[in-house]
Amino acid sequence: MPPLTPDFDSYAASHRIEHVATRPDRLTIVWTDGRTDHFNRFWLRENAVAPGVVDPETREREFDVCDWPEDLAIKQVQLGEPPSLLVTWAPDGAETQFHTGWLRAMGEGAWRPQAGLPARKTWDAAAMPSPPTFAANDVLSSDDALQAWLCAIATFGFARLRGGPAAFGFVRRIAEKIGTIRPTNFGELFIVESKPDPDSTAYTGKPLAPHSDLPTRETQPGLQLLHCIENTCSGGASLMVDGFRLAEDLRTHDPDAFASLSEISWVHTNRHRDTDYRWSGPIIEVGPSGAIGEVRMANFLRVMPDCGPEDFEEAYRAVRLFMRMSLAPDFTCRSQFEPGDLVLFENRRILHGRDAFDPVAGSRCLEGCYLDRDELYSRLRVLDRRRRTTLNA
Amino acid sequence: MPPLTPDFDSYAASHRIEHVATRPDRLTIVWTDGRTDHFNRFWLRENAVAPGVVDPETREREFDVCDWPEDLAIKQVQLGEPPSLLVTWAPDGAETQFHTGWLRAMGEGAWRPQAGLPARKTWDAAAMPSPPTFAANDVLSSDDALQAWLCAIATFGFARLRGGPAAFGFVRRIAEKIGTIRPTNFGELFIVESKPDPDSTAYTGKPLAPHSDLPTRETQPGLQLLHCIENTCSGGASLMVDGFRLAEDLRTHDPDAFASLSEISWVHTNRHRDTDYRWSGPIIEVGPSGAIGEVRMANFLRVMPDCGPEDFEEAYRAVRLFMRMSLAPDFTCRSQFEPGDLVLFENRRILHGRDAFDPVAGSRCLEGCYLDRDELYSRLRVLDRRRRTTLNA
Repeated sequence: MPPLTPDFDSYAASHRIEHVATRPDRLTIVWTDGRTDHFNRFWLRENAVAPGVVDPETREREFDVCDWPEDLAIKQVQLGEPPSLLVTWAPDGAETQFHTGWLRAMGEGAWRPQAGLPARKTWDAAAMPSPPTFAANDVLSSDDALQAWLCAIATFGFARLRGGPAAFGFVRRIAEKIGTIRPTNFGELFIVESKPDPDSTAYTGKPLAPHSDLPTRETQPGLQLLHCIENTCSGGASLMVDGFRLAEDLRTHDPDAFASLSEISWVHTNRHRDTDYRWSGPIIEVGPSGAIGEVRMANFLRVMPDCGPEDFEEAYRAVRLFMRMSLAPDFTCRSQFEPGDLVLFENRRILHGRDAFDPVAGSRCLEGCYLDRDELYSRLRVLDRRRRTTLNA
Repeated sequence: MPPLTPDFDSYAASHRIEHVATRPDRLTIVWTDGRTDHFNRFWLRENAVAPGVVDPETREREFDVCDWPEDLAIKQVQLGEPPSLLVTWAPDGAETQFHTGWLRAMGEGAWRPQAGLPARKTWDAAAMPSPPTFAANDVLSSDDALQAWLCAIATFGFARLRGGPAAFGFVRRIAEKIGTIRPTNFGELFIVESKPDPDSTAYTGKPLAPHSDLPTRETQPGLQLLHCIENTCSGGASLMVDGFRLAEDLRTHDPDAFASLSEISWVHTNRHRDTDYRWSGPIIEVGPSGAIGEVRMANFLRVMPDCGPEDFEEAYRAVRLFMRMSLAPDFTCRSQFEPGDLVLFENRRILHGRDAFDPVAGSRCLEGCYLDRDELYSRLRVLDRRRRTTLNA
């Protein structure tokens, strides 16, 4: 018998069917717990596991959806065993079988990208006196601990590992437990320390106001890892601010400034001898549902609001206000790096910065790298799949 | 004297000032050719090259825009030499100097990301009987040839190099002339050939309908390079379709289908043992200005329209129509890979596919890699800067 699902997940037949109704264009299941799900003819047919449709071995779709006839229709449905629906099709008379556990999961939205991912919780300084902290050794040795750490990052936007080695390369080892490192013009791994002939403020002992890295790129790196190799300086505390919380707060207290920051694009640029990255995007990106999707801001790379001269004053009022909020202690989680500490944060949500430090009286050295944020989501889904497989076993 | 521009570009003082008018909040220049430009007080002040504002050495901004007083004002303006404006500020009495060539360039929009990039031209089969083709050796040895090839890619979405070596690693050499390679879960470089135990249709001799790669990722790879190492098969022609042209055509001839494809998100997923990438986005992404921004489509990875049951029929009608258009000869540029050929295409614009081939009667082997599309724009700007510097010298 061919497999009954077009993917490799396992689905428990945990819910029973009360009633099935069919129309030529769709099939409706009423479950015994009262839930009702509709399944469209084209969707159902193109997810049938059958040679030439969904390959039983690779589970990849081999049939072009445009090749079904316009009058494709559900002709008849019967319950089968193991718990499944047997569908007979017009005009070709084909018969296909669908696992009821899979149908239920699809009806409940298990195919959605956000299914199984933790919900975001924004925070201010009172709620987050120090970074959520996990033991590096646990995360290295246990998938449960890795999952807990990554869930904290998806929820709060950042979390710290403590107790790891203060050695170069550790940041790569952790990054590769999540997904593929994203190299940039700054390299695959980069080092943040004060340098004799700095080509960026990052490489001095000067303070850095909270910002996102690489707002000059169409897709800012989604995740940033910073791992402390050495820190004998006084000062140089790490600053983390929940940019989504700032944006929510601004939306409540100054809707005009929020509108300006979400509707007017600003250009950020980063020009060096061999590169010239520029991007025009709003400082606060709002998704179609109204949810905050991204924050894009770095004072030292911001060039120009992309608007007419009459909107400049309001654009500057809004960006000055937002920046002032980002510097306020009310929103800042301030912590010191101990050698071995590793902080992972969502670069498109959490604005990061640092206090000034004295590069002469000591050394401060961090190794870092970037990943895209969907690497985090992919890893969380795989870890969650493992858990579900265990539960269903 | 400190430099007069907050960047490293060179600007010719090619236009003369007719008249300068000031208000406390902005400065207005009327040029002798009739053009008028306005410059906002905050913008002007934060772009002044002065220690503690824009560092004269790194040209990075060191001053936080929120720290200027609310009553910052332009007090007085004088013309200076070399051609420049001397601005005196209230309330602090500071004096700053701005190069008139730089002011003119800013007024004309030289800071815009699209400045100096070629305009897109969409195409169909009649306009594009074969890929725009350039000599590999020229592109390797001359920046002018590299610029011409990359301009063709930015204009038409794809272009071919012919006459290169049929050797592994050439694709990396070409990619690195543009920017940073984007590794994925398929590796930094990948090989497309028929394999004994394929885990994807790509690794068989089966046909592949035109699609974008990795629609399962938030940011699909912007650029794809495919380099032919060997091709002794019959069949297996490469198919390229301008997805932006398809979208424009659909917008004209079936606005309802266009609305469905641009407003309803579809989920694409790619699930393997160790990864689970999913993304929900429209098949045709339309930017705020109404311009087509991106096409996201792969029949074999498409999972579900993210809409209510009542919209499924229209969603499937639209995707079936769009896919049928993508398979029509009217839109397809069909070509054969010769060993050594390298094709670079915008993966978020050009849908690529192939005819079936017989993997037993010969071999077909391609080496490929991805880059993000802003790497192309950065390289084009740097090449254009070189040209401008030569002109201004």
